[in-house]
Amino acid sequence: MAEVYAARRDRLRERATAGGSAAALVSRSANVRYLTGAAPPGAVLLLGRDSGGSGDVLLCGQPPGGQVTEGRTDEELRVQVLAAPAGDPAVAAAEVALAQGADSLAVEEHHLTMARHRAIGSVAPALLLSDLNKAVEQLRLVKDEDEIACLRIAAEIADQALGELLESILVGRTERHLALELERRLVDHGADGPAFPTCVGTGPNSGRGGQRPSDRRVEEGDFLSVCLGATYRGYRCEIGRTFVIGTAPADWQIELYDLVFAAQRAGRESLLPGAACREVDRAARHVLDAAGYGDGLAQLTGHGVGLEIDEDPQLAPAAMGKLDACVPVTVEPGVHLPGRGGVRIDDTLVVRPEADGGPELLTITTKELLAL
Amino acid sequence: MAEVYAARRDRLRERATAGGSAAALVSRSANVRYLTGAAPPGAVLLLGRDSGGSGDVLLCGQPPGGQVTEGRTDEELRVQVLAAPAGDPAVAAAEVALAQGADSLAVEEHHLTMARHRAIGSVAPALLLSDLNKAVEQLRLVKDEDEIACLRIAAEIADQALGELLESILVGRTERHLALELERRLVDHGADGPAFPTCVGTGPNSGRGGQRPSDRRVEEGDFLSVCLGATYRGYRCEIGRTFVIGTAPADWQIELYDLVFAAQRAGRESLLPGAACREVDRAARHVLDAAGYGDGLAQLTGHGVGLEIDEDPQLAPAAMGKLDACVPVTVEPGVHLPGRGGVRIDDTLVVRPEADGGPELLTITTKELLAL
Repeated sequence: MAEVYAARRDRLRERATAGGSAAALVSRSANVRYLTGAAPPGAVLLLGRDSGGSGDVLLCGQPPGGQVTEGRTDEELRVQVLAAPAGDPAVAAAEVALAQGADSLAVEEHHLTMARHRAIGSVAPALLLSDLNKAVEQLRLVKDEDEIACLRIAAEIADQALGELLESILVGRTERHLALELERRLVDHGADGPAFPTCVGTGPNSGRGGQRPSDRRVEEGDFLSVCLGATYRGYRCEIGRTFVIGTAPADWQIELYDLVFAAQRAGRESLLPGAACREVDRAARHVLDAAGYGDGLAQLTGHGVGLEIDEDPQLAPAAMGKLDACVPVTVEPGVHLPGRGGVRIDDTLVVRPEADGGPELLTITTKELLAL
Repeated sequence: MAEVYAARRDRLRERATAGGSAAALVSRSANVRYLTGAAPPGAVLLLGRDSGGSGDVLLCGQPPGGQVTEGRTDEELRVQVLAAPAGDPAVAAAEVALAQGADSLAVEEHHLTMARHRAIGSVAPALLLSDLNKAVEQLRLVKDEDEIACLRIAAEIADQALGELLESILVGRTERHLALELERRLVDHGADGPAFPTCVGTGPNSGRGGQRPSDRRVEEGDFLSVCLGATYRGYRCEIGRTFVIGTAPADWQIELYDLVFAAQRAGRESLLPGAACREVDRAARHVLDAAGYGDGLAQLTGHGVGLEIDEDPQLAPAAMGKLDACVPVTVEPGVHLPGRGGVRIDDTLVVRPEADGGPELLTITTKELLAL
């Protein structure tokens, strides 16, 4: 794996050099992990200008050791690991860059605070600071097959946790307890942990995005919507499903479910290399819009996933750009009727060419309307 | 409660005005919550210059509503709530400040990224941007009795969760499972959620700060160290204990435990209004240092808690400043022997004058060495 990280750093180095900066400072944790395989809390990566990567240094806020670099030696990481226990590792990195003879340094302006930026400027006034322009996030967009394999396992784990929950008795249990049980089952099945706080909504709370679990108990006749995800080796997936509690769903529940299902399918089916992100959003949104639910829809109908649960691309009306093959995204339209509840259906898929069978569905739990 | 928040905003307004800025932009989430009682994700607070607070506006990234402001109306919040669904609410806030006639705006430079700061500057070039200099964090240091009551309940919940775990069978269970069970019990007892990811270390993993639970199972003869905390109405506490598994601890375990206990007691007993933070650290650290464990100690022996789990003050060798009454802090020295494990003991206490009985211990689980 060390070669993979070294190759990623070389690609970033090319971008930084093309952008006019000899050296780069990566401070955003997921970016540091992407480039080194390790992300001790607060650690930053200094990318030196030498193409062999001999000037690449991981600066840690704590003494480097077994725990900090997750059991890997400096040798295995193929990057020098330095402790900067006092003060800000980003400031220490700027000093190292100066000592390496750099005269400019590209930083992550979308991550570094004003105060940190100023501190770097004051210890290294000779360094010309520029913006790395989210170059690492751009590299992270398209995943390699090893990354997709991690996402596939993360999705399997989430499917398993959800499947087990459906076999248990749900009526009378609170949203909070269901969320905690799902998170425990994720870990049981080998997740590093939940990919994000698990959402459980019952009755009037169902179908809302980002619903924080409350003490409301599941009742007969409720919609129950659940959104969860596993993290596996750092990679995060997402699945959301809506169920009906009781023997038979009401007519309005069936109608609303069918509508959201149709919207989600339209979104899924439009996932192809070269498709404009806004068109994927439109495909799903249009179905809900035409049925009169245009107001109150979420701003996104999906987003990229990877080392973070909310990455580029965004599937939204004003999104720019097109999809590439090997980009994993969620498709997650939903409708919420105030006071009554609603439906949300959410999958993680990988964009694939039609010749390869089209989008690869990672979260395979059924999307039939189950009455539990 | 609305009066409390309005009074906090007035105190901040005084500081901002004294600092030369008519208006202030608060973007850090815990600070927004401290000043309004609500903290929708991404929301920012614009503090207008009018002393009545009529220009105070909470700008949300999503349409304001029941969920976003946690069921409170604008009236109850005593602050105007505006939706800025497109783009950055901080940029929208700067536009509102301009429309209110402000010519300067103090921002949180330790929180705003370079990119957001630049975006504010480009939509409102007429605004002179200055630094709020962590004024809200300074206000948050000393807690009022309502805040301390929340911390007290949070500590009770953590004590209950820990107490129940001790009554169960531990041998053979993994660190991960114990951590998840503790978190479930926190919620069972009324916590909003864990205050931070629960740490469980067994055998060679015991006694380390920030130990992430692994799949190692509890064995006879192990040290077992646990660190957990509850969040109650936003307020976070922390408790850490170390136990021995089996019928009788080994001599080295008893000696190490007694030593860390003595260090922790020395730290606790030095918590008094007016005590220098570095002296509290020294009181605890000195005990471990004199026994030959000076190398490898954590950088802090404690820290403030409140709406965040890691607040000022820091109890560390280079810490500046003195303790005030009504400041809640942790005291948490520990020793970890590589390959063998170690001991960590952690309490949350509130600094109180000697006349009031000295430091108030919030986490009351016994600190005897229990053999489980």
